[in-house]
Amino acid sequence: MNQKEVVLGVDIGGTNTKFGYVDKSGNLLAEGEMLTEAHRPAEEFFERLHNQAEILFASKKENLKLVGIGLGAPNGNYYKGTIEQPPNLSWKFVDVVALLHRWYSIPIALTNDANAAALGEMLFGAAKGMKDFIVITLGTGLGSGIVANGELIYGHDGFAGEIGHTIVDPNGRQCGCGRRGCLETYASASGIRRTVEELLKMPAPPSELREIGLESITSKRIFEAAQRGDKLALEAFELTGRYLGLKLADSVAYTSPEAIILFGGLAAAGDFIFSPTKKYMEEFLLNIFKNKVRLLPSSLPKGNAAILGAAALMWKQLLKM
Amino acid sequence: MNQKEVVLGVDIGGTNTKFGYVDKSGNLLAEGEMLTEAHRPAEEFFERLHNQAEILFASKKENLKLVGIGLGAPNGNYYKGTIEQPPNLSWKFVDVVALLHRWYSIPIALTNDANAAALGEMLFGAAKGMKDFIVITLGTGLGSGIVANGELIYGHDGFAGEIGHTIVDPNGRQCGCGRRGCLETYASASGIRRTVEELLKMPAPPSELREIGLESITSKRIFEAAQRGDKLALEAFELTGRYLGLKLADSVAYTSPEAIILFGGLAAAGDFIFSPTKKYMEEFLLNIFKNKVRLLPSSLPKGNAAILGAAALMWKQLLKM
Repeated sequence: MNQKEVVLGVDIGGTNTKFGYVDKSGNLLAEGEMLTEAHRPAEEFFERLHNQAEILFASKKENLKLVGIGLGAPNGNYYKGTIEQPPNLSWKFVDVVALLHRWYSIPIALTNDANAAALGEMLFGAAKGMKDFIVITLGTGLGSGIVANGELIYGHDGFAGEIGHTIVDPNGRQCGCGRRGCLETYASASGIRRTVEELLKMPAPPSELREIGLESITSKRIFEAAQRGDKLALEAFELTGRYLGLKLADSVAYTSPEAIILFGGLAAAGDFIFSPTKKYMEEFLLNIFKNKVRLLPSSLPKGNAAILGAAALMWKQLLKM
Repeated sequence: MNQKEVVLGVDIGGTNTKFGYVDKSGNLLAEGEMLTEAHRPAEEFFERLHNQAEILFASKKENLKLVGIGLGAPNGNYYKGTIEQPPNLSWKFVDVVALLHRWYSIPIALTNDANAAALGEMLFGAAKGMKDFIVITLGTGLGSGIVANGELIYGHDGFAGEIGHTIVDPNGRQCGCGRRGCLETYASASGIRRTVEELLKMPAPPSELREIGLESITSKRIFEAAQRGDKLALEAFELTGRYLGLKLADSVAYTSPEAIILFGGLAAAGDFIFSPTKKYMEEFLLNIFKNKVRLLPSSLPKGNAAILGAAALMWKQLLKM
């Protein structure tokens, strides 16, 4: 039986960690999930990860050969192989690559989740064959991975691609980063929730969202209201698209991408978010860029996108793509 | 006598065109200048350029070997080798590389002036050895060249790096591009002039600039007033630095550069522009980027920087640097 080379892709999240074995064509051959339990020491986490991954590997009947490990994690630093001060984990500083090398003597690479998503789209998804594109992840916050000349932009310190922390308005909404007016305070699941909160303070329009408590309002609930034609919910998507479109026009001026791919929870709202974002992006684009940049949804399978992205990081390195 | 390889570097400007022969260490061995006369056909211009360059070449006693030509021009497109709708030239569309191949059978490459400046700094100037940096040219407008992973970012269409047309305020100053609030309407020689105009409408502070006609106010005049401690001129530099610093903080979030190099007329104002720009950039930077990014002046010889930049474009290609 032929040996099949696979990469272990790991997506470390605040609550859950997903992992799986991915071949070079992007097929996920086996997958697992475990609690991150980030309140416990990182050493424990990686020991559990190693054990679980080994069990999963042994359970496969195919003749697999593990050739590398790719990880996506909040604040993952590609150059150092470390996680530093991750926003949703209580670990302070973890030398991930060094830790995993206790058990593995194969190449290991780490980056943040948005960069991993960008590589996943490039190798296996909507950005196949593209050399210049941007992936925007619209989750609780706004992450981004920027590819130019066929390479991910890490910057000199590994922290490039923080479009969520470009400033819409220096006197705007308070951001978790300590500054004001960052794009992610407007264009993200929590951003659209804040927009709805502001709209609810006005007397009009009527809305089903006025009937439920503020604490029950989620981006999913806003999406559902919009699907039922709720005017306030639609207005919230319009405003979110305006902020995002304005800053994506800036993004285009930086790297002139062939496409911008929207990914993550809020992107699942489909036309409700794509349509105003596209409209305002075009409105704010410099003439030479108008009607050139495609705004696309991710084409990775939803539940596995993060694993595929993490694996893509390693496959790109191994295949020198 | 040994043959010395040189590249012909050409900087095409709205009024004058400069050219010269540059060796791979960035030595300018011979230089010339001619009127662009962009109201006449482009074919005529390039024929004159060829003749003048040949005369200059023949005048050198050294044994030179011409190995390539690099050009910097407004709206120069690297991928197509064309100039399209240049803002200060009446030529509509010029296939520069094809035209020059009538006389030369050596590699020829073209890009815009800001990109050429970035390559000049990388090969011969302040960005030597850097893989991630940005050059901002502060002239009549604001141009930029962005280098990431050691490569200039051209984008999928060759037009990347338009930081001057990122938007400070969508309701802001009218820009020549037809939109409002572009960075170059604030941070450029013409931008600081507009800031002074606005400040002059206020009753305070007193200023020597109140004594001269609006039409006599230039960025140079504002600089001279600032040197004499003129409060209004100093305030204009402060505001210019605030707008520029705000948007450079965005730039850092995109590509996390090791340095940002300010180049061109307004950058010659030295501390008057560097000091507020640095201050506000740091204020608006995301924590992880603070106190990491150097703000540097160009280190290319002032009069020849554009020729060296144009030559660097070709040297980078020839030496695969």
